Amino acid sequence: MAGVDGSADRYVVGVDFGTLSGRALVVRVGDGAELGTAVHEYRHGVIDSALPGDAPDAALPPDWALQDPDDYRDVLRHAVPAAVAAAGIDPARVIGIATDFTACTVLPTLADGTPLCEVPELRSRPHAWVKLWKHHAGQPQADRVNALAEARGEPWLNRYGGKISAEWQFAKGLQMLDEDPEIYRSAARFIEAADWIIWQLCGAESRNICTAGYKGIRQDGRYPAEDFLAALDPAFVDFVTKLDGPLLPMGARAGSLTAQAAAWTGLPEGIAVAAGNVDAHVTAAAAQALVPGHLVAIMGTSTCHVVNGARLAEVPGMCGVVEGGLSPGAWGYEAGQSGVGDIFGWFVEHAAPAGVDSHERLCELAAAQPVGAHGLIALDWWNGNRSLLVNHDLSGLIVGLTLATRPADIYRALLESTAYGTRMIVEAFVQAGVPIHELVVAGGLLSNPLLMQIYADVTNRPLSIIGSAQGPALGSAIHAAVAAGAYPDVYAAAAAMGRVDRDVYRPDPDRARAYDALYAEYRLLHDHFGRGGNDVMSRLRAIRNAAAGRSAAPAPTPVEVVA
Amino acid sequence: MAGVDGSADRYVVGVDFGTLSGRALVVRVGDGAELGTAVHEYRHGVIDSALPGDAPDAALPPDWALQDPDDYRDVLRHAVPAAVAAAGIDPARVIGIATDFTACTVLPTLADGTPLCEVPELRSRPHAWVKLWKHHAGQPQADRVNALAEARGEPWLNRYGGKISAEWQFAKGLQMLDEDPEIYRSAARFIEAADWIIWQLCGAESRNICTAGYKGIRQDGRYPAEDFLAALDPAFVDFVTKLDGPLLPMGARAGSLTAQAAAWTGLPEGIAVAAGNVDAHVTAAAAQALVPGHLVAIMGTSTCHVVNGARLAEVPGMCGVVEGGLSPGAWGYEAGQSGVGDIFGWFVEHAAPAGVDSHERLCELAAAQPVGAHGLIALDWWNGNRSLLVNHDLSGLIVGLTLATRPADIYRALLESTAYGTRMIVEAFVQAGVPIHELVVAGGLLSNPLLMQIYADVTNRPLSIIGSAQGPALGSAIHAAVAAGAYPDVYAAAAAMGRVDRDVYRPDPDRARAYDALYAEYRLLHDHFGRGGNDVMSRLRAIRNAAAGRSAAPAPTPVEVVA
Repeated sequence: MAGVDGSADRYVVGVDFGTLSGRALVVRVGDGAELGTAVHEYRHGVIDSALPGDAPDAALPPDWALQDPDDYRDVLRHAVPAAVAAAGIDPARVIGIATDFTACTVLPTLADGTPLCEVPELRSRPHAWVKLWKHHAGQPQADRVNALAEARGEPWLNRYGGKISAEWQFAKGLQMLDEDPEIYRSAARFIEAADWIIWQLCGAESRNICTAGYKGIRQDGRYPAEDFLAALDPAFVDFVTKLDGPLLPMGARAGSLTAQAAAWTGLPEGIAVAAGNVDAHVTAAAAQALVPGHLVAIMGTSTCHVVNGARLAEVPGMCGVVEGGLSPGAWGYEAGQSGVGDIFGWFVEHAAPAGVDSHERLCELAAAQPVGAHGLIALDWWNGNRSLLVNHDLSGLIVGLTLATRPADIYRALLESTAYGTRMIVEAFVQAGVPIHELVVAGGLLSNPLLMQIYADVTNRPLSIIGSAQGPALGSAIHAAVAAGAYPDVYAAAAAMGRVDRDVYRPDPDRARAYDALYAEYRLLHDHFGRGGNDVMSRLRAIRNAAAGRSAAPAPTPVEVVA
Repeated sequence: MAGVDGSADRYVVGVDFGTLSGRALVVRVGDGAELGTAVHEYRHGVIDSALPGDAPDAALPPDWALQDPDDYRDVLRHAVPAAVAAAGIDPARVIGIATDFTACTVLPTLADGTPLCEVPELRSRPHAWVKLWKHHAGQPQADRVNALAEARGEPWLNRYGGKISAEWQFAKGLQMLDEDPEIYRSAARFIEAADWIIWQLCGAESRNICTAGYKGIRQDGRYPAEDFLAALDPAFVDFVTKLDGPLLPMGARAGSLTAQAAAWTGLPEGIAVAAGNVDAHVTAAAAQALVPGHLVAIMGTSTCHVVNGARLAEVPGMCGVVEGGLSPGAWGYEAGQSGVGDIFGWFVEHAAPAGVDSHERLCELAAAQPVGAHGLIALDWWNGNRSLLVNHDLSGLIVGLTLATRPADIYRALLESTAYGTRMIVEAFVQAGVPIHELVVAGGLLSNPLLMQIYADVTNRPLSIIGSAQGPALGSAIHAAVAAGAYPDVYAAAAAMGRVDRDVYRPDPDRARAYDALYAEYRLLHDHFGRGGNDVMSRLRAIRNAAAGRSAAPAPTPVEVVA
């Protein structure tokens, strides 16, 4: 099969930077065929106890999660050449490279891009390191940003469902200022790892529309104003100057591979380097789901939903909407469920008795049940609720337990609870005027056919399935092809190189009807516990924190984001 | 130590008939010393699949639970002589025997006491057998009785908290009439096993005030009137004639041991046989808790609470109040929690992973936690709610689950949930004008010191502990001593022969204060899910039953028993 340019023997490399490792994938430009892949694990993984080189007992505070930026370079040094070798291609025929990253994963650097943690005298300062997406210690700062934005009626707040996250740039930056102002002042730049890795590849700084919008509060062409920043803290007034820079649309060419990066990767100097991107968002291209209304659910430990819309709508409780955030010319919407596969894993590890403590066995038993036979409903908030309630103090609930309840009953109820959560999000989009025509699933949970069928039955929609096991890396490769000029735009590249199997799981009408009744129960419980009917979850969290000896924050009031 | 009669060498035998076995205990009259005991397991146990002699596939319908009355005689034949032998006493020095039984466990007999299931031509008819207390298949009949009683404003209904149970005589008798009218007509007598065993021992039929009141709707000296019975079913009009008979107060002498029963037991012919009694109720004497205000909680798979009051009060949601039901001259109150040890057992068997799947290990881990550190609240309704809500369609709930929740967290939350349930009952008594001065614990769960301390902390009351491991059998022995004339009444006998250790577990003020906050959360959830705020539990039960292919009863409305 030949690509649009008529050449079947040119290649691109996509590199997916995950939480624990990075993966490189070699892809044929013409048809998206995946020819070779390799993974490199980060030497320091997630740094959540002591900093590298520190005594093991020099513990970081709770909720911290850092990384070492040189681990990212190691992926370029090891995974890329290994993937090229595995593909058995001539590296001279590679025409471009693109990357995707976890986000918001962000670091402070000098003006030349040197990470502050690589400045010897700053190496012992935690705030000098990369803050990983799941660094949650900036929650007090996020609360301050949200309270001020709400009080001032900042117009951007509703683009984020009414609340920005502790994971994002402003919370992490403000925490840095609060806790280590010297590091804050030393940080000429504060940059997403997604953009920093591009700087490493092509030697020039750039920012991408996606993270600037979803993680950096850039809306309608501007960041929050200086008077807003000054109201947070007079010393924070210059924060946006650390963020601003050349802003690139998705699929744009950020520059050319430097000699040094060519030496790391074994790829030709001067080939195209695409703008930075985010793992979830880049997957939409790989799933051929950039046309408005095709929602991609990337289902793993958590689920991220991305969908393009033709028009702007403010969807209560969503993570964000960004113009061009997925691809140029459309509004990209993002939503999420903060616990999905994590919850199933928790059950197998901590709540399943010997003999049934595997996903395989539990699925086998659960699959034999008629809908509703277990008599259970769960609220899937083991890790809080990211959309629609945007409240990390919410927690899990199970109702309907009896002496006859068996492990597979609860396991099935947990699978179902995440499907109800997805249906809530899909319905919220539709209700707010963002049409959803198709559900496309990507991610590791694809391997669970029972879960897939439950999602089809609960949503009463057919499920399409991404045709690649390496969705993000393939999505990056597609963007590399666009940056290299092999396709006119990311839509054309996605059509040629992406892969999706349509309507693989179809809803059964009887089961869908049965689930309607159970979903109604889920909604009742969701709204009662999530929208102020009974704030017991927040109070229990405050009691727990106080009992555990940590400072007990007052129980927050759940945000009322949907009428 | 000598008894009140100055003799240290006279003995009584108490026999406790449980669900799976009967236990005999030889006790010294003078001081209640326990000298020997023996257990005999019922050959047929609980008959809930096929009748004895039937093909194994001749299954009984769901919710049936029968027993073979000859298994009870076997306890007299085997356990009594074995206990006497173990005690090493001269059987000629035994002056009385008394028994206690599960209730309502009831059987149809001929006029001479022959069980219908021992009439050869009726042996294949399920309704001819003993219906065990946990035979729940009479729920539709209980519903009819309750609906009619409420419609007619029957004055006795509030003596039972507003609702009679499917376990009791009228539900079981009406089911017999509905489903096998020939057996109903053949039943000259319909008698508690508690009274039938006395008939076997002394050759004369009698009834005891306790079961007549708590299980037979006998109040203010009469049973429900004939027009009430006829309104249920014209053929039911004679039901009370099958129940009525010589009615004996607790501790009365029912008769003398017959030659045949003497041959079975090895005890002297002609010794005193006490009136029938109930396992939970008879325990109050053993715990020296017959004085008004001393509540005994018999804690095992479920918990039964009994307490004497000086005056009549109608306590919403309680199982029943019977004049003289525990002892002459007082109003005996009964309440219950339908799942306690059963829930902890369920958790260990079906929800605890390998390595922590024992009560010992879970207690060890749970005991190390500060109050509230697990962040969980559970509603203890795995087996429905017997008091205050009187609704067997309620089910268990856990809220506060997170990815950090560990098995011991849930286990401790389950222990606590049953303590909250007990506190609800104690507070309902006090609020209704039944003073509670002391909590005395009996039963198998005594062996769990963590559970005991949690109950003390949650109720903010010291816990006293019965001083016998065989509370019911010792209680029966005390009644045997009264029937034999060794003491003037059961109060004097309980004072001399009963045993209690006062204030063994004392509440810790800090933990009690912490539990006040968690108990407030329990109450909120209790009332929301139990009193109509959200009837999801009943609806899930109906959905479950329909999905399981059984006839789906319409979801019942929880009874509003407390304002």
